Parts: sequence; C-alpha cells; structure tokens
Amino acid sequence: MKILVANVNTTQTMTDSIAAQARAAAGPDTEIVGITPRFGADSCEGNFESYLAAIAVMDSIVNYEGEYDAVVQAGYGEHGREGLQELLDVPVVDITEAAASTAMFLGHKYSVVTTLDRAVPLIEDRLKLAGLDDRCASVRASGMAVLELEENPELAVEAIVRQAELAVTEDKAEVIVLGCGGMANLEEKIKERCGVPVVDGVAAAVTIAESLVRLGLTTSKVRTYGTPRPKKVIGWPITQG
Amino acid sequence: MKILVANVNTTQTMTDSIAAQARAAAGPDTEIVGITPRFGADSCEGNFESYLAAIAVMDSIVNYEGEYDAVVQAGYGEHGREGLQELLDVPVVDITEAAASTAMFLGHKYSVVTTLDRAVPLIEDRLKLAGLDDRCASVRASGMAVLELEENPELAVEAIVRQAELAVTEDKAEVIVLGCGGMANLEEKIKERCGVPVVDGVAAAVTIAESLVRLGLTTSKVRTYGTPRPKKVIGWPITQG
Amino acid sequence: MKILVANVNTTQTMTDSIAAQARAAAGPDTEIVGITPRFGADSCEGNFESYLAAIAVMDSIVNYEGEYDAVVQAGYGEHGREGLQELLDVPVVDITEAAASTAMFLGHKYSVVTTLDRAVPLIEDRLKLAGLDDRCASVRASGMAVLELEENPELAVEAIVRQAELAVTEDKAEVIVLGCGGMANLEEKIKERCGVPVVDGVAAAVTIAESLVRLGLTTSKVRTYGTPRPKKVIGWPITQG
Amino acid sequence: MKILVANVNTTQTMTDSIAAQARAAAGPDTEIVGITPRFGADSCEGNFESYLAAIAVMDSIVNYEGEYDAVVQAGYGEHGREGLQELLDVPVVDITEAAASTAMFLGHKYSVVTTLDRAVPLIEDRLKLAGLDDRCASVRASGMAVLELEENPELAVEAIVRQAELAVTEDKAEVIVLGCGGMANLEEKIKERCGVPVVDGVAAAVTIAESLVRLGLTTSKVRTYGTPRPKKVIGWPITQG
Amino acid sequence: MKILVANVNTTQTMTDSIAAQARAAAGPDTEIVGITPRFGADSCEGNFESYLAAIAVMDSIVNYEGEYDAVVQAGYGEHGREGLQELLDVPVVDITEAAASTAMFLGHKYSVVTTLDRAVPLIEDRLKLAGLDDRCASVRASGMAVLELEENPELAVEAIVRQAELAVTEDKAEVIVLGCGGMANLEEKIKERCGVPVVDGVAAAVTIAESLVRLGLTTSKVRTYGTPRPKKVIGWPITQG
Amino acid sequence: MKILVANVNTTQTMTDSIAAQARAAAGPDTEIVGITPRFGADSCEGNFESYLAAIAVMDSIVNYEGEYDAVVQAGYGEHGREGLQELLDVPVVDITEAAASTAMFLGHKYSVVTTLDRAVPLIEDRLKLAGLDDRCASVRASGMAVLELEENPELAVEAIVRQAELAVTEDKAEVIVLGCGGMANLEEKIKERCGVPVVDGVAAAVTIAESLVRLGLTTSKVRTYGTPRPKKVIGWPITQG
Repeated sequence: MKILVANVNTTQTMTDSIAAQARAAAGPDTEIVGITPRFGADSCEGNFESYLAAIAVMDSIVNYEGEYDAVVQAGYGEHGREGLQELLDVPVVDITEAAASTAMFLGHKYSVVTTLDRAVPLIEDRLKLAGLDDRCASVRASGMAVLELEENPELAVEAIVRQAELAVTEDKAEVIVLGCGGMANLEEKIKERCGVPVVDGVAAAVTIAESLVRLGLTTSKVRTYGTPRPKKVIGWPITQG
Repeated sequence: MKILVANVNTTQTMTDSIAAQARAAAGPDTEIVGITPRFGADSCEGNFESYLAAIAVMDSIVNYEGEYDAVVQAGYGEHGREGLQELLDVPVVDITEAAASTAMFLGHKYSVVTTLDRAVPLIEDRLKLAGLDDRCASVRASGMAVLELEENPELAVEAIVRQAELAVTEDKAEVIVLGCGGMANLEEKIKERCGVPVVDGVAAAVTIAESLVRLGLTTSKVRTYGTPRPKKVIGWPITQG
Repeated sequence: MKILVANVNTTQTMTDSIAAQARAAAGPDTEIVGITPRFGADSCEGNFESYLAAIAVMDSIVNYEGEYDAVVQAGYGEHGREGLQELLDVPVVDITEAAASTAMFLGHKYSVVTTLDRAVPLIEDRLKLAGLDDRCASVRASGMAVLELEENPELAVEAIVRQAELAVTEDKAEVIVLGCGGMANLEEKIKERCGVPVVDGVAAAVTIAESLVRLGLTTSKVRTYGTPRPKKVIGWPITQG
Repeated sequence: MKILVANVNTTQTMTDSIAAQARAAAGPDTEIVGITPRFGADSCEGNFESYLAAIAVMDSIVNYEGEYDAVVQAGYGEHGREGLQELLDVPVVDITEAAASTAMFLGHKYSVVTTLDRAVPLIEDRLKLAGLDDRCASVRASGMAVLELEENPELAVEAIVRQAELAVTEDKAEVIVLGCGGMANLEEKIKERCGVPVVDGVAAAVTIAESLVRLGLTTSKVRTYGTPRPKKVIGWPITQG
Repeated sequence: MKILVANVNTTQTMTDSIAAQARAAAGPDTEIVGITPRFGADSCEGNFESYLAAIAVMDSIVNYEGEYDAVVQAGYGEHGREGLQELLDVPVVDITEAAASTAMFLGHKYSVVTTLDRAVPLIEDRLKLAGLDDRCASVRASGMAVLELEENPELAVEAIVRQAELAVTEDKAEVIVLGCGGMANLEEKIKERCGVPVVDGVAAAVTIAESLVRLGLTTSKVRTYGTPRPKKVIGWPITQG
Repeated sequence: MKILVANVNTTQTMTDSIAAQARAAAGPDTEIVGITPRFGADSCEGNFESYLAAIAVMDSIVNYEGEYDAVVQAGYGEHGREGLQELLDVPVVDITEAAASTAMFLGHKYSVVTTLDRAVPLIEDRLKLAGLDDRCASVRASGMAVLELEENPELAVEAIVRQAELAVTEDKAEVIVLGCGGMANLEEKIKERCGVPVVDGVAAAVTIAESLVRLGLTTSKVRTYGTPRPKKVIGWPITQG
C-alpha cells in the first residue's frame, strides 16, 4: 500500500526526516511518499501559518499524480485534516490525533511536549475538537522554536526532556507524546529519564493509516466529510501541475 | 471609525447584502467596507471551502490598502478568525461567536438555525472552541443550500422558520440565532411565529467591534495571537495588489 | 437612550464611581443614572450580602420612577440578574458576564482578578451558570477587602497587579478582567506590567446594553425570564416610594 | 434534636404539609419546626420570587428565637442555601440537592419531575451549581402551577405521573425525584406505574440533616461559607421580632 | 436494622476496625456486621486487587446466611458496588461515594486524602463515574501504603495531615474526605490543623444506608441494576458455604 | 507475533467466532490464540457478570503457559482491562476502546449499537472513563440478548440494523460501532442500509495491538498500571494449572 505523508511546512529536509520516521514505522509492504507543500511557511508556529499550511497541503495532495491508499498529515496541532477528509476517498490521519489516541492505550494520562509556547493553545484546541483531551494531563512547551531544534539539537533535546520530566512528576502524565519532530535520540532520552513510553505522532499515524486500509475502512461521507458539492471555486487549486 | 466586513465567499451580491446588514446595525459615524475574497467558493458549505475561505479572507485583508479600525468575518461557522487576529493589530470579530455571545444576554438557551445539515458540525465545533456552546440548545439545519435561499426565498424562509419553531418548542431555545444571511423578512417572521428574540450575526458583530474600538480594546498579543514570527513564507499573499 | 446602572451595595461614593466609569464608556447620546440600593451591606463580599443585594437592586429598580432603556447590574459575581430580567422588559446586563463575554473576543483565555478570596467561588459560580467559564484561566483574589481598596489604594493596586501578573505567567491568561472597581490607574498599571488587554466590567456592560437597545433586542419572555405570574406577594416591594 | 424546616413561600398550609412530610421521615427523637416566611410570594415559580424567598427564609431564620440543630430549606430549585450557610453554624440542607444526592444511591440516572415549565431551568441551574447534574437524565414539568396542585389534585397527579413515565421510558431515568410537594398518593402512583424508586426531597433532606448532626459535621467556615464580615448592613433583618 | 459492612481486603483487624467505626456512627437500633472476604489481597492498592476484591465481596455477601437490611462496601476507590446492586434487593452504599456526597453538603469543594499515589486514579475514576467529581478539588496521596499506616501510625498521620493542609491552602478544599481508614486521632488532627470538617466514608455510608432503609428506598431494578438474568454461571460463587 | 484474544464469557463457540474475526483482521505473521475463561457466565450482560468476567479473564491469562506479545480483551463494555494492564508487561487492548478510537478517525460522531438495553450504561461508563465519549452520538440497544443473536440471527440482524439507521438519522452518527459480535453479514447489511463505515471492535483491537507491538510500545508502569506490589493474595489465581 502507498501512504502520502504530508509535511505542513516548506522545508524539504523536514519532509525527508518525517518520511524517514514514517518508513521506520511502516510495514514492509508500505510505500511512504513525503509531500512538501508548494507554498507557506518554512515552519508552522501559529494560526496564520497553520491555516496557510492546511490549504497548501490540500493543494499539494490534489496536485499529486498517482494512486495512494491513505494520507497522513504530519503537523502537530495544525488545521486542515477535515478538509482533506472531504476532498479524498481514502483515510486521512492527523498525527496530533494519532498520537493522543495511541497514548491512551498505554497509560491513564498523557502529556504532549512541544516547542514554542504559542503552539500550546493550537494543540489544546485540536485535541478538544477531536474529543481526545479528557485524559490529556498537560501540553507543555520547551520554549524553543522549530528551526532552533535543528540548530542546537543538544540544548533542544535537554529542554524538551525537562518538560517531559515535569509532565510526569507534576502533571501525573504516564505517557509522553512528542509534539514536534526531527531530533535524534529524543525518544530514547525521555524514556531513559522519565521511565514512561514515548509516542511519536508520525509513527502512530502511519500504523493507524495502515490498519484502516487493511480493514477496508475510510472516511464516512454521509454528513460532515461529504464530498464538496459541485460549485464554482475560483483559483483552486492554488498551484497548477 | 471604519470596519471591514469580510464575506467568506466570492459572490459579490452576498458581500453587498452583508454590508447592508452591517450598515443597518452600525452607528452613524461608522463606515462599513464590504470585502470579497479574490478566490474560493461562491458559497461556503464545508471544511474545504471554509479553510480556503479562511486564507482568502486573510489574503484580501492584507491586500487591503487603507486604514481601518476593526474587521468582522462574516461567515457562519467558518475557520480563520484566529489567523486574522495574529496578522492584525485591530479587533477581529467572528459573526458566529458574536451572535452566540449576544444571544446569551437575552435568554437561558439559544439555538442556531442554518441552511445545510453539513454546516451543523462546523458551527458546533466553532462554538465549542469558542467556549460558547454550553447554553446552545441546538444547531438546526433547514436543509436548503446557501444559494437556494436566493433562488426560492419564500420556501427557504418557511423551512428556516419551521426549524426555529422546533428549536423553541422541542429544544427549549429562548433565542434564535440566524446562522445564514441574505433573506428579507426572515427575522420578522421568526419573531412573529416563535415569539422570541432573533439575533443576526452581522449586526451583533458590528456592534461588538464598535464597542471594542470605542473602549480601546484589541487582541492580546502575548501568546496565542501574537504577531507571526518573521520567517520565510513562500507564495504569500496568494494574490498580489 | 437612558441606562440605569445599579450599584449592589449601599455606599453612595461607590455608586458615583461606577456611574462615572459607565459615563466614560457610554456613547454621547446615552444618559447614565446611578442607582443605590436602599438597604443591604455597604460592600458585598459573600452570599448573604449578595442575595440581599439582589433583592435590594430589584427593589430600587421597581421603585424607580421614569423611563429607561436598559439596566446594568454593577456587582462582580453577585446574584440577581435573572430576577431583574423577569421583572423588566428592557435588557439587563450583568457586569460579570459582560466582562467575560468581552474578554473572549480579545484572547484565548482570560482571568478575573478580584479582592477577597471568599468572592472567588461566587464569581466562578456565576461564570459557570452563564456558560462563560470554559475559557476562564483562573479567578484570583488579591486578599484585600472592597473597602480597603479605598483606604489604601496604592497597596491595593499593587496586590491586584501582582495577581494579574501571575494570571498571565502561571495560568496563561491573555486578558485580565477586573473583578472589582473604583481604583484610579489600575487598568493602566496592569496593561503596563502585564502587556495584556484589561477589561472593566462596567464599561463592557454599558456598551453591550447600548448595542442591545440599538439592535432592538431584549430579554426573551417565553420561558425562564417570563414576567412573574400574577399572584399575592406579601411585603413587596420591600421599600415604598 | 430540633430541625427547622423552612417553607419558601408564604402559604401556611404548605408549611404544615411540608412539616408533616418532614415528621414522617424524621427519627423518633427529632423535633420538626415548620417555618413560614413573613414576606414573599404565596408560591415560588421563578427567579424573582425565588430570590425574594431566599431573603425571606434568611429573615425568618435569623428572627427565630430558640435553639436548633439544623435547617432544611424546603423549596425545589430555589436560591438561598449558600446565604443560610454563611449566617448559621448548624448544617443547612437544601431539598433539591438532598433529593438528587439520595437518588444517586439508587439508580444510574435520575429525573426530576416538577410543576411549571419555567421552574425547569432553575432546577437545572441549581443541580449544575451543586455538581449533581451529571447523572440527571432530565428535569420534566407537568405544566401545572403549584397552587393548581391543590385545586385539582387528581389531574395534577396524573400529569406528573405521565412525565415520570416518560422520564423512565424516554430519558432512561431509573429513579424519580419529586420536584414539588403536597400531593397525597403521588409517590405511590409513580412507584406503581413506573416501577422505580421515588425520592421526596423533604424526607431526604431531613435524614441527611439528622445524619450530619449525629456525625458532628457542620458547614465549613474557611472560605465560601465563612461568617459574614462585620459591617454596616442597612435594613437587616427585613422584619423585626 | 442490620447492616453488613464489607471490608475489601482479607485483613481481619481491618474489618474489626471498620466495623467499630461503623458502630460509632450507627444509630442505637442498628446492628453492624463486619464481613471479611475469603480471598484476595491483604490490602487493596490497585486495579487487579480491587477487581479481585469486588468479586470477593460479592462472594462473601451471597454466602452470608441471615437477613440484613443494607450493605456498605468499605473500600476507598474500589470496584464492585454496581455488581452488589444487581445481586441484592437491599440498598448498597459505597464509602467513596458516601463520603463525597456528604462532603458536598458541608463546603464548596472537597478533597480526598489517601495513602498511595497509585490509588489516586482509581478514586478519581470512581468519583467521575459516580458524577461526584465536579466539586472535588483534588485527590491527594500521602505516599504511604495501607499497611504502613499500622506500622508507623505517627508518621502516617503526619503525612496525611500535611496533604490535607495542602488541599485546603493550595487546592481550595473546604472539606477533607479521608480516603483510608484505621488511624486513631486522624480526624481530630486534621480538624485541628486545617480548621475544616473531616468526613469519614464508613460513618457517612452507614448513616446513608440507615436513612435509605428508614425511607423504604432501595436500588432501582428497571435497567442498569436489574437482577441478573437467569443463566449458566460456572464456578459461582467462588467459595462455598 | 502472538496475540491472546480473551473472550469474556464461557461459551467456547463465542471464543472461536471472536478468534476467527481476529484472524481475519490480523497480519499474515500474527498468530491469534482464543482464550476462554474457566468460570463465569455463558454471556455477559451486566455488572455482576462483567466483574466476574474481569477476574476470570485475568485468571485465564495468568494461567496461560507460553509467550505472547499482546492481549485483546474481547468483551463490549466490560470491566477488567486496567487489571490486566497491571499484571502484564505486554500491551492490553480493550475492544470497546479500540472500536471507539478507530471510529473517531472516520467520522465526526459515532454510535455504538449493542444488544440488551441494560448493557448501554456499562458501555457508556467505559467510554466515559476512557475519555472517548465526547464524540459518541449514542449507545443504542436492539433489545435482544447475546444468546438470542445465535438463536434467531435474521431477526437479530434486522433489529440491530434498525438501531444503526436511527443512530445515523436521529443521532447524527457518521460511523457505527458494533457493540456485539458473532453475526454473519451484519457489517455488510449496516453499510448497505446506512451508507456509513462499520467498525468491529475485535478487528480494530487486533490491528491496534499489532501496531503497539511493532512500535515497541507497552503499558506505562509508573503509576496507575504499575505491577502490583508484592503482598499476600489469598486464593489467587482462582483456578490452577
């Protein structure tokens, strides 16, 4: 089966890193194709950038030529999954929801650890809308921007591990969800220091997408996510070919 | 003061009608400017169209030349208000939230009556995120599309009034919020038949925007709605000049 | 238009101060009349005093001779607004609810800062009943009584500003609602020190009342706030003439 | 021990009937004293009347001469319990809360059946504030006023039993709480027709009050229900001696 | 009347201590019979032990020969009450729920103080299912195991009193519920140090059970707690005679 | 990998049917072993039977000789998953939660359709505790007992399909979760008649268990589901060898 894994920002190295994570989690017969939006921010850290990413991901997916069996939207706390579900007939899995859903099988409460403080309300809102917030102990931010993670990985890792520790000791989280990507050894360090399972959203989303495909399940079309009614849509898709 | 009232779809007659509603509610010193997006659907009835509208509204506002004191986003249940709040320093008022907020001063519970059934979950989700759903008795749909309202206004009015009646008698609503626009006499008919106050979102939003401007209040920039960090954003704005 | 602004305690200087705040927020054509209850406590800081105030406010309003277009109940976290809504045909706006409702247009979460710790549960309960608590980050008390505010204004201001700071840094509030009144420069100091918008309930309530009157909206009479059924009511109003 | 059972309206026959119910539930060593307010409505059916009753009950209790061990406030869905808790050192039990609390030991969900439709939101609000609404399946009204119950008891009983039946079959209630008083045979008829336990608030409240007294428990005075601070309270109590 | 008070662990001295607490709370005409399960853990501190206790308590009750009027299940945060309700026709009262329900008549918020940290989620879950969590300020653990309480009572008491203090000062609890049993003077020390009422679950449950019996109320059998349908149940009861 | 799929009742044909469902969903390298409890009811339809099943499943798992990688508890709305999580180091997946979690990736709201009405509160409670109830539109019962499903499959299928239709049209479910097992063609008929995806809990749970194993994730042991402390447990396991 083939799964498109859509990055939400325009940084190609991020797409590569996400696709690599996806491949590591995927079964042997699953092909992973990383998708980079053609417009938008080089990192997503707020509502404007996230809304733009939502449309950019839809744009890149509808421009994608070839068959595929599922789509994973690989942005933490980002808008847009509902739109993809309307446009497509294959399952669409958002990593924020996939990670939360997976964490809930592993412990009584989970916490999300992310980068910037301003991402926290976006993540909280997505979890709330998804109805997956009830067992969320906290969403914590390390205070480092997405791109800083790449610039000073050691410091970034330490800052995130510190928040994971506080989530476990102060907020009573029993599972940590990584609300950001691309750092080597992060999972291992959190596991080591906190003694709890660590869920990576990309990995979780890929296995869920595979399972949905295998079970022959896809988005319900009867109401919320029905195919858009035929109508005049000016300027869509945003980019061509 | 000057308020931009942004339509969420590309139908100019709708913009005109919304601007007229806004003007009827505005104070004598308020200038209303209707804004039509440069791309997107001719009517918004789902997540894809709504996400596209969110970006199209932001695009048209950032392209707007001239000063203004506030922005009203005039789509019922649509995405995007948070993005505008990040991009702008003036108050941004969404009509879904304005109407709910106003209705809560008038009765114990309110109901929203809208057009298509598929719009219901979008409205419910927006109210939930806004924390304004607790006293919402129901969101009901008349089953008629946005553009049908214009084609067969009499039937459309009757279908909506019928849902308003059911909201009052079955769901115990004490106030009706109109989750759609553009029909003559609709408010009067609902008031007459149901005996309850009827809140129009555009009117409510304009008076709230005026009040915020008068009180010198605008969007908090400390966290969620902080100005986007300077970064490379490819292809933005979508349209130029 | 004419708006009655009802103080909830029997301290005339408080009424004057509240009326002045109301006038500062009101439009040029709005007449503000301050109302002082004829009985009750000289400051309201608990349920007994608040219930007594509820009846005293209703008593003073029904005893008021002359026309008016709306009533603002100017007590933070006090009982009684629902009773006024039953007795009157004009809009009634409570400042606790007006402030919360206004704050929600300005930031993702708001906090209320009030005087005594024992007022906190009353405010929380009013916000809960009003369905406006979902985005309330916290209700914090400075620990100073209402009348101390007047006796030692500098210390009182500092104590309240400190709680506002904690609300922003610890509770993640993006807007501060002032749950008490009458201190010069308080708003400015909080804005300066915390960098967030500050909402004053009296100002918010007056603009909402004006808007409701302008839009021709008033309390729904179909159920909860219907006019009391004609019946024998001994000893009402409590005071005469 | 001696328990004051306070009627919320000024109808002496109601007080007698409530006191009789209380006596039937009380232990052999418990003395029941019925209290009738000195002012207020002859029946309570809305917020204004309920707020007035709150103050009238407090007035009659503080005017009561003699010792007592607990107070039961015997109005369904009425305001005021919190005020009594502040003024008194003995336990105060509200029948709305007592009935709900008791019903929750008997079945998975309970429904309240009351008289007038306009009382429903008051009851819902009191249960919500008390944190006892989670397992409330519904609050249903028979549509008959309090005094009609006495005028046409047979019809009134039938109307209430009908709502109890619907609560069980439609709303999945497993216990019925009687949100009104004074009718002979009502409990028996509901039990017979619906096959579920029926909880009377006065009886429930009396046994809870007795238990609290026996266990030496009374209202916590550390915060919300602390004794009112000494201050000038004009015109209190409302009535003298 | 006769009440069976079922210990959830197999430690006979605990049963004796619980029965003594029950007797101290019971009325003069109430006979208390302590029941010790025939299998299970010598102390219950987790889900496995609690599920086993649930079955062991049901086993010991169905094996009990003789009449009784009510059953109290005396384990804090344990499973099983619903099963007893199905099997029996007499009222069943769980001490976790009895204590919470009682505490809510005494203060605005209550906290539970228990022994081990791992018991906290069990208690929270039971309160949530019971719909009694809304006014629960916190569930705090002293970090000492059930049996340590007996080994080092002085230290255990101090550790629990410290958590009670924090519940009052930090979490704003106004009432403390003891989520563990068997220590002399614990109630007195908490009352003395925190100045708030202290509710013991066994005492609360006994008086509630007595009240239900006196009022002729028992478990509703129409749905959730209906008698099990006749069917083949292998190996039940677990123990014989 | 090897997954134990535990039936909750003692009917071997049910175990076989569940194991067959599991095998149909499992990957080619997954071995499925059906487990039948050694004691308990031949069908589970209430709390007593469900609690007994919880212990019987734990008993049969701890008695199982041989290695395995995960456990699926295959009872809809049953107790016990938390206990297994404490006792085992491998992932444990409950089908009630697996189905809900999966359905939430497919539509805005889902409904569960089960057999007996008395199972509804158990399922609702499990979903509530799992924090998966927010997007549950309804839990509906066909009114037929578990064993009747096998006796009159045609009628049973029709009764269930009817409830699924009502869930979609009345309750606005967009996905149907089957809260019962063992009927041929049920999924196909619901899909055909309702046009929505149908989720089978056993299939969903098996793919989730496989994914957890593949990702190297297992139950967090830091708090709620920590291994039981060493202590004296009389009579455990219930059965030997």
